[in-house]
Amino acid sequence: MRNFNLTPSRRVRRTPFSDRVERAGVEAYTVYNHMLLPTAFQSAEADYHHLKRHVQVWDVSCQRQIEVRGRDASRLLQMLTPRDLRSMMPGRCYYTPMVDETGGMLNDPVTVKLAEDRYWISIADSDLLFWVKGLAYGFRLEVDITEPDVSPLAVQGPQAEELMSRVFGASVREIRFFRFSRLPFQGQELVVARSGYSKQGGFEIYLEPAELAEPLWDALMTKGADLQVKAGCPNLIERIEAQLLSYGNDMTRENTPQECGLGRFCDTLTAIGCVGRDALLRTAMEGPVRQIRSLAVEGDPVAPCLDPWPLFAPGTTTQVGQVTSAAWSPDFNTNVAIGMVQLSHWTGGTQVEAETPDGRRTSIVQNSAFIQ
Amino acid sequence: MRNFNLTPSRRVRRTPFSDRVERAGVEAYTVYNHMLLPTAFQSAEADYHHLKRHVQVWDVSCQRQIEVRGRDASRLLQMLTPRDLRSMMPGRCYYTPMVDETGGMLNDPVTVKLAEDRYWISIADSDLLFWVKGLAYGFRLEVDITEPDVSPLAVQGPQAEELMSRVFGASVREIRFFRFSRLPFQGQELVVARSGYSKQGGFEIYLEPAELAEPLWDALMTKGADLQVKAGCPNLIERIEAQLLSYGNDMTRENTPQECGLGRFCDTLTAIGCVGRDALLRTAMEGPVRQIRSLAVEGDPVAPCLDPWPLFAPGTTTQVGQVTSAAWSPDFNTNVAIGMVQLSHWTGGTQVEAETPDGRRTSIVQNSAFIQ
Repeated sequence: MRNFNLTPSRRVRRTPFSDRVERAGVEAYTVYNHMLLPTAFQSAEADYHHLKRHVQVWDVSCQRQIEVRGRDASRLLQMLTPRDLRSMMPGRCYYTPMVDETGGMLNDPVTVKLAEDRYWISIADSDLLFWVKGLAYGFRLEVDITEPDVSPLAVQGPQAEELMSRVFGASVREIRFFRFSRLPFQGQELVVARSGYSKQGGFEIYLEPAELAEPLWDALMTKGADLQVKAGCPNLIERIEAQLLSYGNDMTRENTPQECGLGRFCDTLTAIGCVGRDALLRTAMEGPVRQIRSLAVEGDPVAPCLDPWPLFAPGTTTQVGQVTSAAWSPDFNTNVAIGMVQLSHWTGGTQVEAETPDGRRTSIVQNSAFIQ
Repeated sequence: MRNFNLTPSRRVRRTPFSDRVERAGVEAYTVYNHMLLPTAFQSAEADYHHLKRHVQVWDVSCQRQIEVRGRDASRLLQMLTPRDLRSMMPGRCYYTPMVDETGGMLNDPVTVKLAEDRYWISIADSDLLFWVKGLAYGFRLEVDITEPDVSPLAVQGPQAEELMSRVFGASVREIRFFRFSRLPFQGQELVVARSGYSKQGGFEIYLEPAELAEPLWDALMTKGADLQVKAGCPNLIERIEAQLLSYGNDMTRENTPQECGLGRFCDTLTAIGCVGRDALLRTAMEGPVRQIRSLAVEGDPVAPCLDPWPLFAPGTTTQVGQVTSAAWSPDFNTNVAIGMVQLSHWTGGTQVEAETPDGRRTSIVQNSAFIQ
């Protein structure tokens, strides 16, 4: 496939960081929640090496927040997810598969509990707000539901903690994984969580107001100069190696959380009130018949995966799954991939064949992600 | 702004026509309903002249269909829109503003009534499916709600009827505006409506199954060769001249249908059951205080409108509206624009100032669209 330009318009929203991102030399974008998301600065491969060695600043404003506030906020949140939220304390972030009444995935956000009656749902690429509003209206819940102008900025990489401590102070080091603190920056308190869409460690700063965007960006760049900080973005190669799923790529409404390997985030027995609970109880008991797996696709670097690539039992036309994300991994010296594989072939070490744009490729199902 | 590449992935879905679109020389895309939408072939201006003189074939697969089927389908449809659907007959297409409980626009689809208990909602750029499913679940309605694999192909331009009659037969000529017929193509019956996102006349073919996509594209191209048929796409210049609104550009959840100038599609008194009716009753009585207007922005061709441009009372810092779409119009020899203008300044002929990226421009509010 040739390269195509992305036509700009208001509908494809810019972010408070877009001017800085473009000055930093962004090469390509995708559109995510009707907003620009950078996809490459130097190149996916150069960005990947840098992310694993140094520290990067990522404009992930497209992780929009749905704010749910009010007397019924906790009830509504539990309706959305099969994860049991009863013991969730303010200050915590939970990865929360969200499902419809059939158990189909609608989004896989991080839920941030700001207070007993106030949450942010930090969403992947779907207008989950519409579902949340529909349920709240249908059940006459006492909640306000809004999209506040909060623009997350991620700081990722092995030097992330060092850089963050220079900007926000040493207390950043005390923040535990998937917890947040409110830390001062230029007279405002920002929500800062230890989280992010990589396995290299790091933080996400939930920026508001937007006026602080460029001062924050500039502070990170200035104080990280000797750490070789650079602008970056979620990296396709690293996220596939780490089996970090992408909603719309690796899973859709067609899939249950169990199929997505997210069963550990489902407390189907105790998540009373989840609208998908009835549908998921059976799956939880019997287990899924297909599931997300990492795969190694042999041979030369593959083309990007634009449509799912069917997986076949070797030498046959029997389809046993599909690949939905793939990229060449310099560190593992093979193509790494994420796919949905049927029970009959999902055991680690099983050989299958992926139908790539340039023909069938022998592929090996992995026991686990390439990086854990 | 520089040009940026769009990074391909499965999440940004290709359409059954994408291979043909690329072979036809598409230059740029946008992303619309998580799907590729072409934005230019030769250039917006060359495409514009061709559209107004000849006939074009547009891949508008991104106008996804929400199918609502079942005993409560009509009840659910009326919940979604303030347009009175009681007298809508099968075979009709209605432009239907869809609103939330506050009267805020969620989408502005065309609703296609296939049968008494079966509708397609042909959507603009938002996951309206989530709202429809949320309401159906909350009210325990007896409906099935799906996104069938229907890919609309538009045939637009003054020669559209001639071309369509060559492919589908003379009965195409009998289809009235915003009505549809089922017409045979290679052994299948396709829904063919007289509609489309231009003022040049034409049709939309609701293609299914996807296997017919390339045969249909090729038939239109072959039989239209002497009509100078070309691949095209919704044209920014022409749609602004015609004041065809774009959800996400010219209107958002912040706006009521009345503000969007869509009051004629609202029967607020009789649309009993519409969830936004209570909120809209007051607006319908009192009228909005700001409304969509066409504007002429003087001077040289303007840059694309990426963020709303504030409109000011001349020589002041008093904001009286904003521009959300703008382009140079060769036929009107001025920049044409769409904006939201306050009551105090919305009368045709009023002079205001638009804050464009290269400074303030005198702008004249129009009485109506440039082309009707």
